[in-house]
Amino acid sequence: MVVPRRNELVLESVRRLLRMGATPNLLNLLQKQHPADLAQVFAALNERDCHAVFNVLVERNGKLAVEALSELGAEKGSALLADRPAEEIARLVQEIPSDDAAGLIDNLPDELSAVVLDLIRPKPGGGVSELLDYDEQTAGRLMNPNVFALPEDLTAGESITAIQTARDVEMVFYLYVVDQRRHLVGVTSLRRLLLVAPDTPLKRIMTSDVYSARVDTDQEEVARQVASYNLLAIPVVDQENKLVGVITVDDVIDILKDEATEDVFRLAGVSAEDGVLSAPFDSLRRRLPWLVVNLFTAFVAAWVVSLFANTIGQVVALAFLMPVVAGMGGNAATQTLAVVVRGIALGELTWSNARQALFKEGLVGLGNGLVLGLVAMLGAWLLANDWALGAILGLAMIINMFIAATAGTLIPLGLRAAKVDPALASSVFITTLTDVFGFLSFLGLATLFLRFLHTAPAG
Amino acid sequence: MVVPRRNELVLESVRRLLRMGATPNLLNLLQKQHPADLAQVFAALNERDCHAVFNVLVERNGKLAVEALSELGAEKGSALLADRPAEEIARLVQEIPSDDAAGLIDNLPDELSAVVLDLIRPKPGGGVSELLDYDEQTAGRLMNPNVFALPEDLTAGESITAIQTARDVEMVFYLYVVDQRRHLVGVTSLRRLLLVAPDTPLKRIMTSDVYSARVDTDQEEVARQVASYNLLAIPVVDQENKLVGVITVDDVIDILKDEATEDVFRLAGVSAEDGVLSAPFDSLRRRLPWLVVNLFTAFVAAWVVSLFANTIGQVVALAFLMPVVAGMGGNAATQTLAVVVRGIALGELTWSNARQALFKEGLVGLGNGLVLGLVAMLGAWLLANDWALGAILGLAMIINMFIAATAGTLIPLGLRAAKVDPALASSVFITTLTDVFGFLSFLGLATLFLRFLHTAPAG
Repeated sequence: MVVPRRNELVLESVRRLLRMGATPNLLNLLQKQHPADLAQVFAALNERDCHAVFNVLVERNGKLAVEALSELGAEKGSALLADRPAEEIARLVQEIPSDDAAGLIDNLPDELSAVVLDLIRPKPGGGVSELLDYDEQTAGRLMNPNVFALPEDLTAGESITAIQTARDVEMVFYLYVVDQRRHLVGVTSLRRLLLVAPDTPLKRIMTSDVYSARVDTDQEEVARQVASYNLLAIPVVDQENKLVGVITVDDVIDILKDEATEDVFRLAGVSAEDGVLSAPFDSLRRRLPWLVVNLFTAFVAAWVVSLFANTIGQVVALAFLMPVVAGMGGNAATQTLAVVVRGIALGELTWSNARQALFKEGLVGLGNGLVLGLVAMLGAWLLANDWALGAILGLAMIINMFIAATAGTLIPLGLRAAKVDPALASSVFITTLTDVFGFLSFLGLATLFLRFLHTAPAG
Repeated sequence: MVVPRRNELVLESVRRLLRMGATPNLLNLLQKQHPADLAQVFAALNERDCHAVFNVLVERNGKLAVEALSELGAEKGSALLADRPAEEIARLVQEIPSDDAAGLIDNLPDELSAVVLDLIRPKPGGGVSELLDYDEQTAGRLMNPNVFALPEDLTAGESITAIQTARDVEMVFYLYVVDQRRHLVGVTSLRRLLLVAPDTPLKRIMTSDVYSARVDTDQEEVARQVASYNLLAIPVVDQENKLVGVITVDDVIDILKDEATEDVFRLAGVSAEDGVLSAPFDSLRRRLPWLVVNLFTAFVAAWVVSLFANTIGQVVALAFLMPVVAGMGGNAATQTLAVVVRGIALGELTWSNARQALFKEGLVGLGNGLVLGLVAMLGAWLLANDWALGAILGLAMIINMFIAATAGTLIPLGLRAAKVDPALASSVFITTLTDVFGFLSFLGLATLFLRFLHTAPAG
């Protein structure tokens, strides 16, 4: 995706006006933007400018400023709020839907967050503080508690009147129907209400099969349901099936985006909180542990190579070519891993067809190995002028490509069985395997067939 | 995301009933499923079973069968349709919205597709064949041409009557308003119609700022707009701003999912069409070219190493440790690449803050290099008992980590400037760079300081 040219222009103007200190013009420009566009501007500014722009905007148009924060995401948004007085934060967050407010408050420093919560607790109706009682990443935390519901004993006409007088409702394209104790019993639509005679009982025109999520449903499962069944919103019920909130499709889109980023990042060994504009030290702190683990495994591979010091001392050309075997195994494994991890994420790969997938990837690995082994054989001959060396390289390549393919399938499946995110830990295991087995097969074969190789240092 | 247990159970039952030849029970089970769940079943079955199940279902409940195909995705869906007679295909695809039908027809073999199109062309109203006139991946191809619009000179009461008598409309939560020549002039909602007196002119209660997409807008840009502005649907207009269709948020979710898969796959060097259950030969054909390119670059790196044959011959421990430098550079570059590519995709990284990002990643690279260089130094000393070798390894590591970080930022930005998808080609460039510079810096330094190293083969 490419950022629209328009937002880049706005960004440049914001920077220029800020530098010139032209606050009235800056305010004028900011107030014309959609909150989502403002969020993009905030995301692209450096920290100091970002605070400056936010401070200018929040004094004049608190609602727009805090809406932009909520579009920016809870973590970054609350960082901009954190240096304001608790009273002001409490006032500001009440301008946005409680689910968004809960996210911002939850990410404030603990003490400040408690004070703000105390200040807004008395607010009647679906409160922010109740949402924070639910676990993170559950439907309960994500939902908007201001859900509009119709009692089941109304008629179509009475329902329309109820809608006309309802206030502060996020959306009314699905009309949920509840019984006297607020149990969710059905769903209908405004259009359907208009199509029947006003005295038709609601019960007659509602659908009683309603997809719903429970407060403790994981947000990914919620996203999956909304996406598969093409819903615009999903009602959230508590343990007793009482309607307590609603999650709209725009929140689901945010979840899906975050999940996608998480998959890409985890496969690359990056924390989901990392980003292109994070503070350098934060990125460093988040990336180093992963690299240290990799360094350790790299030394395991180095130790494997050291076992063959004698062979390498006699045929130096082995040193040129051994990274080819290991590296190509790594590349092929990465391909398999991406396909398998994404297959698991999209629900295409399950236990029941795992054997079929393994067989297929194994075949592809062998096929890759045969073709690449042959090409590598030629390459080795060109580089080292040694046919036997080429044959050994080709054979090692076939072995390592097959290992890469099967490990690339089995490791993520195994991690999933152990309830670890397959995207998270697979790549470090697999690189180690392809390195170790790449070196082992190539140098092992070379040691075995040493008498056929040119033992004078080649090159 | 994890596939719900329920669908796994359905899948197992489908397999069992199919094996037993219990067609009536199978039909019974299939007909109880949502099309999206059926699509998951189809996706998880092998090709033969999938055809068998589809054939059973399509005879009894063609609509459900073809709805499931459209959930399955155009490519896989049309493969299941392709062995049926053109007349039947034409009849079946008219059961689903034209945008979905267009996708299925477009993916049929060319001849069959033409026959089917001829058969359905006479259908009045927003036709399938018109959609196929638009380029792939544009709003025009994606939209549903059956869009409901209100003429601007109606009153609120007349509008409600129009809605009550409208038929075959995908959704009415946004009501688009058009002038006499069908130019898009505004938007309102059913709820707003109900809140005003019946004789209020529509013009008074509509919003005239409508986000819209043009038929030739790229689908990613459409998805971005719908996602950023939290829309449930976006109207599509032609070059003259005439309303010609609508794209709903469920289609946007599909685009976002596909984009995420594409990003993961491209970073790993896999084609977007590949999948965990593709035919082995198709996967092979799609993955080999990428691996051949990588093999070529691996030989470039091998050639660089061969330049130092003499040094390696004297200090074999260099052969153990050189993959550590190259591999760690590759790992660090992958981290940077994931963050930068995703930053570009999400619009957080633009030209205006590229310098800031480069500076930050460079700092992280140096920091990583210093810490890992120090650890590697210790490791080298443990493995080869040579302090000078450790120092050279550490230094080479710092150099290569810095190169990895800067290349990991600059290459995707450069590719984007050249209008190539940064996710697609970055990793092959970067692995080559980190390999070549890893070997070059390590072996170069070793050659330079050869007199300080233990020149008896260590190990």
